[in-house]
Amino acid sequence: MTHHADYSNFANTLSKKDTLELVVESYAALADGQTNWVANLANCASLVHHAYHSLSVPVNWAGFYVLDPKKDNQLILGPFMGKVACQVIPFDKGVCGTAAVTTQTQLVSDVEKFPGHIACDGETQSEIVLPILDKEGKLRGVLDVDCLALNGFNEMDQKILESLCKLIGETCEW
Amino acid sequence: MTHHADYSNFANTLSKKDTLELVVESYAALADGQTNWVANLANCASLVHHAYHSLSVPVNWAGFYVLDPKKDNQLILGPFMGKVACQVIPFDKGVCGTAAVTTQTQLVSDVEKFPGHIACDGETQSEIVLPILDKEGKLRGVLDVDCLALNGFNEMDQKILESLCKLIGETCEW
Repeated sequence: MTHHADYSNFANTLSKKDTLELVVESYAALADGQTNWVANLANCASLVHHAYHSLSVPVNWAGFYVLDPKKDNQLILGPFMGKVACQVIPFDKGVCGTAAVTTQTQLVSDVEKFPGHIACDGETQSEIVLPILDKEGKLRGVLDVDCLALNGFNEMDQKILESLCKLIGETCEW
Repeated sequence: MTHHADYSNFANTLSKKDTLELVVESYAALADGQTNWVANLANCASLVHHAYHSLSVPVNWAGFYVLDPKKDNQLILGPFMGKVACQVIPFDKGVCGTAAVTTQTQLVSDVEKFPGHIACDGETQSEIVLPILDKEGKLRGVLDVDCLALNGFNEMDQKILESLCKLIGETCEW
């Protein structure tokens, strides 16, 4: 018998490319017929967390910030895996805010060197934040993955996670 | 300097009662001035997960199901910590559905003995599910905590988690 939890079991013999591509495939399967953004992002955070842990990448936080329905130009915490996080992030603050304003992926090898970095967790050393746009090209949120090591992410992570974010934007009703 | 992540660091010298009561206090602090249910439940799932892990209780899933806005008498996945989970649960199915229909806490020492149990993860052996009612007494969702061991939870968990769910119901806009 298979269970939903099995989606989180990534073989640790897979390459990084294969593991991250499996995240995208698994998300596509889970979102097939389900458009609820909270449910889809919650399972997606679990996939990303477990994928990086199977690769022994020390990801300490993986999850989402979305547009705050109560305040313009502000992100608010969405589903995630990890320790308790900052609830709101203004657009002009930190890595997440920069990704939101520019709608460009922010690949940060050392968060201490990023101007205006917001530390929700002082242990984070590197980070990748990717914008999520809906079918109409409107910003809806960001995917944020944090790592306890410097240089946790590279262009391969960026490329595959960008395809994940494209799929998220297209499959959810916001 | 303190960080939001510090809320997740429970001293493993605390008693179970003190640890779970600290979850309630921490949730109250985080929800002070913040009514967004997604943000509040996401941080709450993190608090519950880290609290049980500091107590060495093998909790494998901690999170929320809420009313599905698209279908009456159905729960849909909310924020959680753990492996990928079932996206929807009809009211008449399993432990979560029973908690929703009866608006009574379900303390299940052995999930295999619960009629109609839905296994999102075949490794779960015991479970506690508590209803969340808003200020008007309307059901809004459930808190679900799963354990890899039999008899993972008792009346103390029930009592303190019920006070947590009462606070969640009162502090969130749904």
